[in-house]
Amino acid sequence: MNRTCENGSLRAADAGKKVSLIGWVSKRRNLGSLVFVDLRDRSGIVQVTFDETMAEKVKEVRSEYILSVSGTVQLRKDPNPKLATGEIEVLAEEGTIVNRAETAPITIADDTDTNEDTRLKYRYLDLRRPVLQKNMILRHKVCMIARRVLDEKGFVEIETPILARSTPEGARDYLVPSRIYNGRFWALPQSPQIYKQLLMIAGFEKYFQIARCFRDEDLRADRQPEFTQIDIEMSFGDENTIFATVEDLMKAIFKQTVGYTLEDSFVRIPYAECIRRFGTDKPDLRFGNEIIDLSPIFKDTEFAVFKGVLDNGGVISALKFENAADKYSRKGLDKLQDFVKHGFKAKALAYLKMEKGTLTGSVAKPLSDAEKAAVAEQLCLKDNDLVLIIADKLKIANTALGALRVRLGHELNLINNDEYKFLWVTEFPMFEYSEEEGRWVAAHHPFTAPVEADVDKLFSDPEHVSSRAYDLVLNGYELLSGSIRIHEQDLQEKVFEAIGLTMEKAKERFGFFLDAFRYGTPPHGGVGIGLERLVMVLAGTDNIRDVVAFPTTNSSLDLMSESPNVVDQAQLDILGIEIANKNKE
Amino acid sequence: MNRTCENGSLRAADAGKKVSLIGWVSKRRNLGSLVFVDLRDRSGIVQVTFDETMAEKVKEVRSEYILSVSGTVQLRKDPNPKLATGEIEVLAEEGTIVNRAETAPITIADDTDTNEDTRLKYRYLDLRRPVLQKNMILRHKVCMIARRVLDEKGFVEIETPILARSTPEGARDYLVPSRIYNGRFWALPQSPQIYKQLLMIAGFEKYFQIARCFRDEDLRADRQPEFTQIDIEMSFGDENTIFATVEDLMKAIFKQTVGYTLEDSFVRIPYAECIRRFGTDKPDLRFGNEIIDLSPIFKDTEFAVFKGVLDNGGVISALKFENAADKYSRKGLDKLQDFVKHGFKAKALAYLKMEKGTLTGSVAKPLSDAEKAAVAEQLCLKDNDLVLIIADKLKIANTALGALRVRLGHELNLINNDEYKFLWVTEFPMFEYSEEEGRWVAAHHPFTAPVEADVDKLFSDPEHVSSRAYDLVLNGYELLSGSIRIHEQDLQEKVFEAIGLTMEKAKERFGFFLDAFRYGTPPHGGVGIGLERLVMVLAGTDNIRDVVAFPTTNSSLDLMSESPNVVDQAQLDILGIEIANKNKE
Repeated sequence: MNRTCENGSLRAADAGKKVSLIGWVSKRRNLGSLVFVDLRDRSGIVQVTFDETMAEKVKEVRSEYILSVSGTVQLRKDPNPKLATGEIEVLAEEGTIVNRAETAPITIADDTDTNEDTRLKYRYLDLRRPVLQKNMILRHKVCMIARRVLDEKGFVEIETPILARSTPEGARDYLVPSRIYNGRFWALPQSPQIYKQLLMIAGFEKYFQIARCFRDEDLRADRQPEFTQIDIEMSFGDENTIFATVEDLMKAIFKQTVGYTLEDSFVRIPYAECIRRFGTDKPDLRFGNEIIDLSPIFKDTEFAVFKGVLDNGGVISALKFENAADKYSRKGLDKLQDFVKHGFKAKALAYLKMEKGTLTGSVAKPLSDAEKAAVAEQLCLKDNDLVLIIADKLKIANTALGALRVRLGHELNLINNDEYKFLWVTEFPMFEYSEEEGRWVAAHHPFTAPVEADVDKLFSDPEHVSSRAYDLVLNGYELLSGSIRIHEQDLQEKVFEAIGLTMEKAKERFGFFLDAFRYGTPPHGGVGIGLERLVMVLAGTDNIRDVVAFPTTNSSLDLMSESPNVVDQAQLDILGIEIANKNKE
Repeated sequence: MNRTCENGSLRAADAGKKVSLIGWVSKRRNLGSLVFVDLRDRSGIVQVTFDETMAEKVKEVRSEYILSVSGTVQLRKDPNPKLATGEIEVLAEEGTIVNRAETAPITIADDTDTNEDTRLKYRYLDLRRPVLQKNMILRHKVCMIARRVLDEKGFVEIETPILARSTPEGARDYLVPSRIYNGRFWALPQSPQIYKQLLMIAGFEKYFQIARCFRDEDLRADRQPEFTQIDIEMSFGDENTIFATVEDLMKAIFKQTVGYTLEDSFVRIPYAECIRRFGTDKPDLRFGNEIIDLSPIFKDTEFAVFKGVLDNGGVISALKFENAADKYSRKGLDKLQDFVKHGFKAKALAYLKMEKGTLTGSVAKPLSDAEKAAVAEQLCLKDNDLVLIIADKLKIANTALGALRVRLGHELNLINNDEYKFLWVTEFPMFEYSEEEGRWVAAHHPFTAPVEADVDKLFSDPEHVSSRAYDLVLNGYELLSGSIRIHEQDLQEKVFEAIGLTMEKAKERFGFFLDAFRYGTPPHGGVGIGLERLVMVLAGTDNIRDVVAFPTTNSSLDLMSESPNVVDQAQLDILGIEIANKNKE
């Protein structure tokens, strides 16, 4: 087993060299007295040829057997341009079967032929597929780059506990019963939030951690019960310092993995402006087609529908798509209308088309010529332009148009898939009203600082308090969120009060944390970057399981190890817990 | 807050520079109209001087306040040689209080004055102590170096699940109840063992992970419920490849942290030889004084005690300490006898001293002159040499002398504390007999390969089967353990059988893992390096809590967050579990 090189590394220049290789049999073909074996290792595949004197050695070899081979590299008569090693082959002079293999239940060479559940059950075979190997190595590279960049900037990686205290905010905690203290529990952290703020209080100034986080949520397609966060916190800075750090990090990652040069500094748009222009706090900036408010044009309209909406405080807003009128038939537009009605509760979708200098479409008739001329002028309409209009409450119109914008962006191929457009969305609302709980709750988390000018509105006008929370958005996805934290104990107590958390309750939940603020807390803030999402973008996949070595299904099952599973009664006895349903049996 | 440099970085060469600093007030002294503040940040401490025009600004400042200061660096009249910045001070021209602090419940400047429980409760303040800051940064450095070295060697870091399947081997699992599947549980992994072997089966060839591990054991002083392991696994290699990888890793870590150059390749000693020479599988090689078997000298002895022991198959073994006879009085030797009797069940401790050419001591009288002469010759005894002798069963004699060797090594200052002596202990026994379970159990873990020559003794003579398990020992501490794994399914099944695990039981526990061996498993092996132990050695501390940011007490309590803690009944209801004791109330 004295392997001299990696299979995928051999090239025409190596012809004549003696090599020793090892790997899995990816394919085996017989051609008369010759046997060809595609030998695969992590680096790639190379063809090994066994002539008639050697064929006997590999007679019993089948797919996924492990072979050790020595031989001479030679140029191929028929190069295979699809293979990086396609110009050469290795003529085997020695060959040993290292281990045998039964017929695999999934096809490793082909990515698509087996259903995902079977592939998850045999994940160790699924992971042999070159695309998954590439993704895992990419994930490793991203982490290596992140650590190098942050280390060079003076950040220190500090591990925080996974057996932590339960702090019920937002998503549910996974609990861990204590054996020593029966009846008490640890919780797996939803993020290292409290610990990293304590590290700032402890004076570490610049902390990071590529940290495992846990959320016991009903899973969506892009979530896993455990996930990883590039977690960063720093003292004595502000948004500018934090953004610069993250931007340098992203620039290094994108340059060194996909070879893409990001803009020198990223666009920043405050939340309110973002919603107004794009109808979402996660806009895809790879294309324009922003939302346009047409309301002023219609302030004296006689068109009853628009008039009614405006009288009720609503808006008339629109999107324009150039040269797209002929791409949406009546039927196509009906589909768009269904989309905004059912998905976003909009009452209707109106449209106008500029056809040979004339505006046609669902509202062409009820609108006056002056109104139509004003619309054409405001939108600079040219022939074959399409205008989609929603007259509704502001929030509904914005959200529906925001979604339509993305849908048409894809349908009309307005998006350059090779582009990466970053955007900081800043000044998120401090609070949001929870109908369920009948109170204002923290929109980000209760440690987020309000914008200084809004502090006096905490109680009088919570709806309009902006926070120093921010998101980094990439191509329409939220890549991270973060905030400047509160560092004064007084203000922290006020914010708790504003969300209806009495100091008593707050102390019960975060007592030790509130205590810590008394002893010289530096101004600080940070971010948590979703590692899986970042790697998904770089790998060009929409399936989170493509970037996680051992993922669960969407319903939180590990099909490979069949877990969660039942455990011995003895184990439960030691922990002092019982399964509740058992009593009912 | 435009900090221009770090406090600890200022030197005499900076005199005359304008600087802006920020940090915590470590000490504040008034000297007439002048106020001196020691301002501390992560980098160190610098003295800031406020003259009478500025003193007002810092009138209310106390320890642990955060101050922002601008001023000019100037040479001190009385340099402080204890401080790295001791040649200079900063004359304050501006000063702002950034945040206030109450009186801290622990003294940060002094390491020793507060009891550990109080320091753990206020860990965020304890962590301000420079020694702990240094240790955390050291830990970060060790991880950075490990990742760089392994990455350069082609290892890929892959994250494995923390919500894993319960596999009850050895220490107890922490369990996590499933909300979606009430009555089923995840387990926190004791190590990524199974996952990393699956990654070898998946063809990753070289894996590593700085991985969190969990063991629900009754804690010893040097254990924590969660700990971190530099986990490594590789395919297609053997002991030599693995040892070389770990040696390169250690060389880089020791060179780049403490500036120590390790030996080019580490000593290897098989387990049996190690026990024979040092009485332990974790010998401290910084000094000699190996165990010497004197039995042959006494094979025809008339001394009843020795004769009895030898007749019962025991041994007469000894340690020699040069020039130490006068350092152990009768009373001192009695203490040593107590030590081996109570700690190691030895029946007695005999001794001889070479005094002015004559052997004296507890067995000088009963031994014949010829025997004494033979002992003196075999041990090359010189004046003032001390010989400690145990006549007992082999195992007792070895263990007791091994412990005595270390004790006297320390007492006699035979150990160079600046030295790092590594040692591979190889070929550990495959099995050990569990009195408790009445069967042979895996000494390492059941996936460890037996030495090839011993495979046919698996059932006939399990006691004498050697395995391909190894430890790396440093200065008497086990730093890592690892093994070459079994890669053939047949052999794996045999080993399970040998430890009394029926295939049915084995399949129930490791079914998916055994399945995986069918599909082309490469030869593989690896190690798990205890990160905390490694950093403790480098930091020169015996307290594991000195190298963990947020540790628990020895009884597994987090005094800072007061966890584990009780949780709401609603949380338990969701998880479908009940606290067992509740029913009894």
